[in-house]
Amino acid sequence: MLYLVGLGLGDAKDITVKGLETVRRCRRVYLEAYTSILTVGKEALEEFYGKELILADRETVEQEADSILKEADVCDVAFLVVGDPFGATTHSDLVLRAVKLGIPYKVIHNASIMNAVGCCGLQLYNFGETISIVFWTDTWKPESFFDKIEKNRQNGMHTLCLLDIKAKEQSLENLMKGKKIYEPPRYMSVNQAAEQLLAIIQNRRLQGTEPEITENTICVGLARVGAPDQKIASGTLSQMSTVELGGPLHSLIVTGTMHPLELEMLQLFSADSSSFENNAFQRTT
Amino acid sequence: MLYLVGLGLGDAKDITVKGLETVRRCRRVYLEAYTSILTVGKEALEEFYGKELILADRETVEQEADSILKEADVCDVAFLVVGDPFGATTHSDLVLRAVKLGIPYKVIHNASIMNAVGCCGLQLYNFGETISIVFWTDTWKPESFFDKIEKNRQNGMHTLCLLDIKAKEQSLENLMKGKKIYEPPRYMSVNQAAEQLLAIIQNRRLQGTEPEITENTICVGLARVGAPDQKIASGTLSQMSTVELGGPLHSLIVTGTMHPLELEMLQLFSADSSSFENNAFQRTT
Repeated sequence: MLYLVGLGLGDAKDITVKGLETVRRCRRVYLEAYTSILTVGKEALEEFYGKELILADRETVEQEADSILKEADVCDVAFLVVGDPFGATTHSDLVLRAVKLGIPYKVIHNASIMNAVGCCGLQLYNFGETISIVFWTDTWKPESFFDKIEKNRQNGMHTLCLLDIKAKEQSLENLMKGKKIYEPPRYMSVNQAAEQLLAIIQNRRLQGTEPEITENTICVGLARVGAPDQKIASGTLSQMSTVELGGPLHSLIVTGTMHPLELEMLQLFSADSSSFENNAFQRTT
Repeated sequence: MLYLVGLGLGDAKDITVKGLETVRRCRRVYLEAYTSILTVGKEALEEFYGKELILADRETVEQEADSILKEADVCDVAFLVVGDPFGATTHSDLVLRAVKLGIPYKVIHNASIMNAVGCCGLQLYNFGETISIVFWTDTWKPESFFDKIEKNRQNGMHTLCLLDIKAKEQSLENLMKGKKIYEPPRYMSVNQAAEQLLAIIQNRRLQGTEPEITENTICVGLARVGAPDQKIASGTLSQMSTVELGGPLHSLIVTGTMHPLELEMLQLFSADSSSFENNAFQRTT
């Protein structure tokens, strides 16, 4: 049996009781290590589970799926995923390959950023399409995600923006030389995401259009959701470019139309209470 | 401290390790009992937690929040919620009341139907607004949710339809007599939801408009997601009106535009493989 086990978002104890029992029973346990991180490292997980973990980076999962699935028809193998196995990154590839090999699979769900963002008080059923904001480079500055945020907001919907993770990047030099030497991981902060959005707003104005989303649009910055040192800050998009949220992982929400109860919750987390006076209330009246 | 603890979706062991430790430590433990159900009852939870649970129905939470929060500034109180505390139903009211009383709170997240539906292979970031389908009565047959599904589909987005739960309903007679006698709980099935959608399609045609969603639109019926006897069936909306999924809780997804990998996953669950030949593929080509 292949078990896809969600680890939740915080630390080792965010695994479910069922998940923990499963991990302890499995012959081999893989830890998916490229799309997200917990606030604790592999060693802390190994100690808590009492099991050695095999790190599975993107290459392992894509190129060596068969080795992950080896003998999973006669023994139990677990594949651990931060969040939920079908959250922000799905593992459909691995499931489909298992099914083709006649290997049964089970999913042990957990919280993922896709539902845990509800903790800021915005209601999950009022979210539109989720988007990803990627790191801009000197030569590549895509803006397509901005149009999706605008569309959501025009429809009154909030937008969850997942922020880029570069977990196993090669420098151009190492890539060209074929050297598997990797740069330190980079995680986009709410500040960086807000700055890119503000730059797009400026670009749009230079092109003669006034975007629906402006410097004053109410946003929510979230850091380390589900961890003991979780931080949430609500305020204008401008404020998001300077708000202090600490280490990764960060997520950003651009609000749509807010229900009074949503607004009241957001104010618990306001970076600066004046930011709500001129903006958010206008959207609900 | 007030702890809002998600229980996940299946049985007693779907609580997280952190959640279980918290429950065992709390002076009073409430179980929210009106928006969702686990596949096991209160007694099974009490036995596993080693704690007595106080059932909190809608009236308790709304009218007696102060009794739930009593002394939570000096002792630990847990409020248990099936799924995640900020999933399909949010508990913002309770949080806001706690904050006003100066009571600190913590959220222990878990899977909810809002993210666990990803197990069917449709990607969560391709979902638009989540809608609720309510039981029609002889005199009240709202159709507004249909327009939201249509809008999502026009935007290429999938729609998660949460199906009605009548957990503590009074008959009109008992209501008028002020008798607190309740009808047996009712849970909308995928069959019933599909029938209401098919009726709306007929209504629209009688009004001279051809809806975007038809009898042949690919849908996914899900039952008891996260439980050992979970069932998923994909097929046309017509097929959803007769598919056998067993006991509650059910959810329905109306698909938007599908990515080939999403389609491949859905086919694992197809009620009748021929349903995919004429429909879904047309949407991706």
